[in-house]
Amino acid sequence: MNYENIFQEIYRELQSVKDEGHVADYIPELARVNPDQFGVFLATINGEKYAFGDAEKRFSIQSIAKVFSFVLAYSRVKSDIWERMDLEPAGTPFNSLVQLEYDKGIPRNPFVNSGAIVVCDILVSELASPMDAILSFIHELTPHHSIRFNPRVAQSEKETGFRNYALVNLMKSFHNIHNDINQVMDLYFQLCSIEMSCRELAEAFLFLANNGVVPYSGQQILSPSRTKRTNALMQTCGFYDEAGQFTFKVGLPGKSGVGGGIVAVHPERYSIAVWSPRLNKKGNSHKGMLFLEEFTTKTKLSIF
Amino acid sequence: MNYENIFQEIYRELQSVKDEGHVADYIPELARVNPDQFGVFLATINGEKYAFGDAEKRFSIQSIAKVFSFVLAYSRVKSDIWERMDLEPAGTPFNSLVQLEYDKGIPRNPFVNSGAIVVCDILVSELASPMDAILSFIHELTPHHSIRFNPRVAQSEKETGFRNYALVNLMKSFHNIHNDINQVMDLYFQLCSIEMSCRELAEAFLFLANNGVVPYSGQQILSPSRTKRTNALMQTCGFYDEAGQFTFKVGLPGKSGVGGGIVAVHPERYSIAVWSPRLNKKGNSHKGMLFLEEFTTKTKLSIF
Amino acid sequence: MNYENIFQEIYRELQSVKDEGHVADYIPELARVNPDQFGVFLATINGEKYAFGDAEKRFSIQSIAKVFSFVLAYSRVKSDIWERMDLEPAGTPFNSLVQLEYDKGIPRNPFVNSGAIVVCDILVSELASPMDAILSFIHELTPHHSIRFNPRVAQSEKETGFRNYALVNLMKSFHNIHNDINQVMDLYFQLCSIEMSCRELAEAFLFLANNGVVPYSGQQILSPSRTKRTNALMQTCGFYDEAGQFTFKVGLPGKSGVGGGIVAVHPERYSIAVWSPRLNKKGNSHKGMLFLEEFTTKTKLSIF
Amino acid sequence: MNYENIFQEIYRELQSVKDEGHVADYIPELARVNPDQFGVFLATINGEKYAFGDAEKRFSIQSIAKVFSFVLAYSRVKSDIWERMDLEPAGTPFNSLVQLEYDKGIPRNPFVNSGAIVVCDILVSELASPMDAILSFIHELTPHHSIRFNPRVAQSEKETGFRNYALVNLMKSFHNIHNDINQVMDLYFQLCSIEMSCRELAEAFLFLANNGVVPYSGQQILSPSRTKRTNALMQTCGFYDEAGQFTFKVGLPGKSGVGGGIVAVHPERYSIAVWSPRLNKKGNSHKGMLFLEEFTTKTKLSIF
Repeated sequence: MNYENIFQEIYRELQSVKDEGHVADYIPELARVNPDQFGVFLATINGEKYAFGDAEKRFSIQSIAKVFSFVLAYSRVKSDIWERMDLEPAGTPFNSLVQLEYDKGIPRNPFVNSGAIVVCDILVSELASPMDAILSFIHELTPHHSIRFNPRVAQSEKETGFRNYALVNLMKSFHNIHNDINQVMDLYFQLCSIEMSCRELAEAFLFLANNGVVPYSGQQILSPSRTKRTNALMQTCGFYDEAGQFTFKVGLPGKSGVGGGIVAVHPERYSIAVWSPRLNKKGNSHKGMLFLEEFTTKTKLSIF
Repeated sequence: MNYENIFQEIYRELQSVKDEGHVADYIPELARVNPDQFGVFLATINGEKYAFGDAEKRFSIQSIAKVFSFVLAYSRVKSDIWERMDLEPAGTPFNSLVQLEYDKGIPRNPFVNSGAIVVCDILVSELASPMDAILSFIHELTPHHSIRFNPRVAQSEKETGFRNYALVNLMKSFHNIHNDINQVMDLYFQLCSIEMSCRELAEAFLFLANNGVVPYSGQQILSPSRTKRTNALMQTCGFYDEAGQFTFKVGLPGKSGVGGGIVAVHPERYSIAVWSPRLNKKGNSHKGMLFLEEFTTKTKLSIF
Repeated sequence: MNYENIFQEIYRELQSVKDEGHVADYIPELARVNPDQFGVFLATINGEKYAFGDAEKRFSIQSIAKVFSFVLAYSRVKSDIWERMDLEPAGTPFNSLVQLEYDKGIPRNPFVNSGAIVVCDILVSELASPMDAILSFIHELTPHHSIRFNPRVAQSEKETGFRNYALVNLMKSFHNIHNDINQVMDLYFQLCSIEMSCRELAEAFLFLANNGVVPYSGQQILSPSRTKRTNALMQTCGFYDEAGQFTFKVGLPGKSGVGGGIVAVHPERYSIAVWSPRLNKKGNSHKGMLFLEEFTTKTKLSIF
Repeated sequence: MNYENIFQEIYRELQSVKDEGHVADYIPELARVNPDQFGVFLATINGEKYAFGDAEKRFSIQSIAKVFSFVLAYSRVKSDIWERMDLEPAGTPFNSLVQLEYDKGIPRNPFVNSGAIVVCDILVSELASPMDAILSFIHELTPHHSIRFNPRVAQSEKETGFRNYALVNLMKSFHNIHNDINQVMDLYFQLCSIEMSCRELAEAFLFLANNGVVPYSGQQILSPSRTKRTNALMQTCGFYDEAGQFTFKVGLPGKSGVGGGIVAVHPERYSIAVWSPRLNKKGNSHKGMLFLEEFTTKTKLSIF
């Protein structure tokens, strides 16, 4: 299929839709981003690549990075991560403390903030240099080898991340954080500050469409069964309080971030990354969601 | 694939697993069910059929019926059902009032009790004889034409359904129930008392695997797009507080009921119904969940 | 002290305060009340009486009646009422279901709606004609013998009281309602529809200022210890989500109703009733609260 | 009245009651306290003093200190403290985050942990050396001039106070903490580590029974009106989730701490401090509560 034509067609259609969203503005580094940028990249398991717009431009991937830290923990740590977190949708705004208190410090899943913080705590316990390990891991997934985090973004996140500190302290009071809070949170904020382009994201997620094997290297990252389970987890938990919407309208597993990026995976076929910085009320890319909805409608390529 | 051999093999394996669950006992009609019954039925869109155990025996399908009432409303009513309910996972026990109060009387999705009650209210508003309409609708989906509800079960549900009455009254106080409460609840309790066999359930759900077309009659029930969306909704919301678990371990959209039944759908391939009355703590069939997990693992037929 | 001069003085001062409140309008009988009526009545344990404004005019006492049903149950039933409800402030809006679900159907105290409904259930269990018993009980407290409930108000309450039906059904699901729901709710709505004047209310509450003895008859209604406890309960729980405000600013135990009435008690001295129909956001009489605040400030007669 | 005889009599009676409580053990300094110590001290506004048991022995007053910081802020800061906190009972366990999130970072009252932390934040903003100011303030209230905090207790509190850090971070995310979190929390933990005896506590609280005037010095600390309001606030909010119980059974305004101390005030008459380290399930002194209940019953000196 000529995906680039479809990209152009949808992009033209979306021009007439008013983008009501707003760029994330809780830190200056995100508030400054030009909101009119737009990029798409699709990579198939057969090696085809389709780009559109600002597909090569790096942006702050934010919560999308939680998939990398999760897969690293799921594939390579010795302890049972499911004793430390659940795998159910959150059903409440993405960083709510209420649920966490009700569940006695056990996060609902690894993709809500609290869950990603527990994953960081696990990585701090089990790995000597966890942030280096995360970046090396990303470099195993993609041929691009200069991916890094933005230290100014990490610093700004740290200075304003009071709600995340509330989460980690609450979990620590329930004994579900084992390491020093500052060490865990430094890793968490660095993780969220990783910068990648649509191309890099689509390529790095392609193993999830390919039974756990990185296509360009042939390396098996996850077993086929765990790959399916990771996709399933993205399906039910990848979009904060909008996972149902995304599943309903797009019909692919995926993950979004407040930097305006979304990656989605069609098992056995392709991965696709979109970037448009303006966010809807739920904190997901407004235009990115619409684009993917149109894309799976036009291509009839939902998994359902 | 010879599914019957696989059924036997899994059934043998499960014999060694202690079934820790308990039969639903809040009404005598369910408490009396022989807990050791077990049935499976798989129907492919190509007309193949595979049965095992008590596949022809009717049981109380309970919440599985919420798919029928939802599809009937989604396909045939004039009003916009999404103004009356959301489509996000519930994230809390399946009949919790807390969420409903927080969301000002708007149910999280059509498959939680509150959502199914709103669907009943919509059907009462738009259809002359809504319970007859639901049964006729089921008869359009399957060649079996003697499916009905059990009036004694409906009566018992009504006499003990105080929490459901709390839900409907709370929604009425938020103006999200338009009809007389007793009329709506009578329909709701009749709906939950429908009795079908695994064969009948698998056949009746097959249109969801077949782009909305009933294979045996060729009738288009839902558009392909709405069919995908219904499957997506079952994926994120079909298993109360265990939708994440089921998606993670089984990887198919489906719906369960406290009668011990589960139906799951593999788009473009098959539908499958299992029945085992003992329930796990979340109210889903204990052995049915394990069976389907093993089934998609052995056949590698998850959608992810 | 010449209380009537003080009444006039405060009333004049309050004329310059804009009354931002609104008359309760959820039923026509309350919505129709002339909002500019205002009455006060103070009765001392020594037999002095002070009236101002519409002090003899009857109005719907609404939740103030919960003190009568509570004292009747506290003084004359055999069962332990504290097994069925707690005696802590509610801390959330007055008819919230959340707290009730969290506490497994045990109301926070006898003065929130749920608690008053449990008191009604207890009275239905223990008394042959509970509504007659409540009215007889009120007639023991005051020399006025024509006090009754307004059946049209009771009927309107019943027709619109969906949230109260949600409460009673939720409690029934937790087995904390023992009788038929309709029988309990009929009593509850009749109780809330009792009509009394400021004079009648002040006189009927005077035993609470007099160690449990009705001054005009010498009858001991409650022991001194239980009288103190009833006052204590009104202090912490008598004003929905505004008990702290009232205690802080007025400094007397009391009880309010959405009909615009407030009764307060100064132990060993007097009882006082005010009526002004416009309500503040918390559902208490706007001007009545201000009046009592000024009154205890000017007379320096807080209990603290 | 010969209070010492009454003390002895009640103490003898309580000997036969099994003390089911447990000493606070979340930090070693509290866990090590001999649980069988017991002291009482009563001081009247006329200068009479009555002691019993370990009345001169200092202990960790913990949350009782929140009255000192509150009165200091209420009497001497320029800003309006009621813009930063409410004055309603909490209605939920004493350090719950749920309520705080629901109320957007505004604590329910100055005596819950979150409210006391906001008071500390206000004192940090307005005073040069806030902890010195608190100790000087206590020394104005009582003739004893060596009262101080225990730095080891403060340090242990800090090292284990994750839930309090969750509270302060959550409030900071709602912009209700204006200073550096560590500075605020250091003050808070020092405040809770103040050590005083029953004698010192009873004497220091006596101004609250004396219209705001310190009897031994004649100094006016608070206006009579604000004194009454402080007592009212202790009545509704001084005992965590047991304020209703205490009001109901004891009938005096007061404040408790997890060190096992309780101080209560009878306006126009006396203040009384009890100390018994074993706590009931709600975190208040088990024997201290029983003692005060018996004391107001025997002396008939409730305010109600």
